[in-house]
Amino acid sequence: MNRPPDTTTAVRNVVIIGTGVAGLSAAVYTARADLEPLVFEGPEPGGQLTLTTEIENYLGFPEGIGGMELIQNGKEQATAFGAEFTRGTVEDAMLEKRPFEFELSDGSILRTHSLIVASGASARWVGAEGEDELMGYGLSTCATCDGAFHRGDDVLVIGGGDSAMEEALFLAKFADNVTVVHRRDELRASEIMVDRARDHEDIEFRWNTELEAIHGSQEDGIAGATLVSHSNGYPKEKVATGGDVDRETVNVGGVFYAIGHTPNTTFLRDTPVELDDNGYVWTANTDAWATTATAVDGVFAAGDVMDPHYQQAVTAAGMGSMAALDVEDWLESGAPASVEVPDSSVAKAND
Amino acid sequence: MNRPPDTTTAVRNVVIIGTGVAGLSAAVYTARADLEPLVFEGPEPGGQLTLTTEIENYLGFPEGIGGMELIQNGKEQATAFGAEFTRGTVEDAMLEKRPFEFELSDGSILRTHSLIVASGASARWVGAEGEDELMGYGLSTCATCDGAFHRGDDVLVIGGGDSAMEEALFLAKFADNVTVVHRRDELRASEIMVDRARDHEDIEFRWNTELEAIHGSQEDGIAGATLVSHSNGYPKEKVATGGDVDRETVNVGGVFYAIGHTPNTTFLRDTPVELDDNGYVWTANTDAWATTATAVDGVFAAGDVMDPHYQQAVTAAGMGSMAALDVEDWLESGAPASVEVPDSSVAKAND
Repeated sequence: MNRPPDTTTAVRNVVIIGTGVAGLSAAVYTARADLEPLVFEGPEPGGQLTLTTEIENYLGFPEGIGGMELIQNGKEQATAFGAEFTRGTVEDAMLEKRPFEFELSDGSILRTHSLIVASGASARWVGAEGEDELMGYGLSTCATCDGAFHRGDDVLVIGGGDSAMEEALFLAKFADNVTVVHRRDELRASEIMVDRARDHEDIEFRWNTELEAIHGSQEDGIAGATLVSHSNGYPKEKVATGGDVDRETVNVGGVFYAIGHTPNTTFLRDTPVELDDNGYVWTANTDAWATTATAVDGVFAAGDVMDPHYQQAVTAAGMGSMAALDVEDWLESGAPASVEVPDSSVAKAND
Repeated sequence: MNRPPDTTTAVRNVVIIGTGVAGLSAAVYTARADLEPLVFEGPEPGGQLTLTTEIENYLGFPEGIGGMELIQNGKEQATAFGAEFTRGTVEDAMLEKRPFEFELSDGSILRTHSLIVASGASARWVGAEGEDELMGYGLSTCATCDGAFHRGDDVLVIGGGDSAMEEALFLAKFADNVTVVHRRDELRASEIMVDRARDHEDIEFRWNTELEAIHGSQEDGIAGATLVSHSNGYPKEKVATGGDVDRETVNVGGVFYAIGHTPNTTFLRDTPVELDDNGYVWTANTDAWATTATAVDGVFAAGDVMDPHYQQAVTAAGMGSMAALDVEDWLESGAPASVEVPDSSVAKAND
């Protein structure tokens, strides 16, 4: 179903941006409700989960399931109900117009009554040697997801913020020893989190230290890592390659990156969709327990792109379903016809 | 793992009430975080999903999965990580105490630092002949879940509120004809929903009419239904068996109950956990997009028991995961030790 979207015909009911679990779950629900969604795969089809080899905590798979396998299952499931997938890229999102208009990278125009943003968040990578090969094979960006695979291992956590402390404390339940590796000599984490991590007998800290390389293979996992310490304080260069440094290879079985996530919302920057200070889509906090509605009527969001907190496969799948049900309600309520459209936009929309 | 809980030893980290998808997902997450949860199965182990034969919209199963199979998978998954299941019943929940105390039906006392309420909601049943046998085999309480199985069928929707109108409108996408059967001659639904349903060419109404019996078999599904109409207005008796009634058997392939859900929160009535007007657990509406926290510190809720709106398998699984992560944060923050406990409770807790 990877064909260019048909941009010559009727307005779409719903466009979904993203094919991680949130986008796929939204696709399953909207397709099964006969809304014929068009789903954009984006630059990283399948999202964060494709960086995970094995998922043990997604309910329904007692033996676990591969990240790629879950994504492929989900795509197959959505396709079976009539979802259409495309690799096209949205260059410009014109969300002031009704229907919404997207300009695609091939110059064509796509129109839709509603939009589900499920473009995810990307964990930041350190840039260490070996990380491309070993991500998902002992190198991870999620302790909750992968910590339980490291019972009895020594592991590294890279980072110095609250989430690094949380990851370290969580990993200390499983690992023999957790070393927090931080570029600077002070932490950005909150005092209470720092105290808790410092007080833990199985957690150590390496200051002014950077991860230079991770060693191992996809077959056998991680064998060790090379750390570079700077006795004169943290360097301005990404990794100092000479001079006053100590280079040491440590024997660890796991490495966890905890230097933050970047939500994939660049394409929304010039739209009326509101983003929070970190770039996550703001979803309306109404009387309802939760809603996937954004600041723009008809635009909904689900998964990591709007959830800086939980960021689990099963939570993203749940939110994708919520967004789909919210879209159904919204389309059913006749909202698209009743939206007030500024004159200038009407003129353009009739081009 | 179905043994009576050990009530003589240490205080539990977390007790989970309910083994529907929300409870099981919470069990997987808390067990995998080494919190050794104790999970109460309650009077309907597996919850609403066990009334569903086939689930097509739970992400990850392109061929669909049986409701009972998903529940069994989830239980196996949680057990593998160390969750303990028990059929004991909580008679009394003493949530003013720290740790919380539960009196079980055998008179024993169980103590826990935290609680996840995932006791679900039960769809109301009409009481028609044949419903016990045919629930899940053509008879359903969820159009979103099962509507797509009825392409080309004629179906009945039983009920007169907003959710009955929503179900009817949703079903009209698939079914040839939808008949809303209502005991009275006016609807409780909101005007806009009524207008939309009335205006739909494939939706009809039968007033002053009750469902008396559903015909069919688990092998072949529903073959028809017997309706009883009261020309003199709706009767006070449940189903009038004589007098001024018309009894008619209609040829339908599906029946949908839409007369509401009852959250399973009776055991919380005399506790400080706040319930809304319909008995659903109120969860805190904070700055966070969503939280599973209730009015009582250390008590969290997930799934249908706190979500009157979405009530899907995949959303409940997501919320179960959220509740587990919220419990982890809460236990990690040392909250149990810092809670102020009234003197009287301390005395009792030391019994």
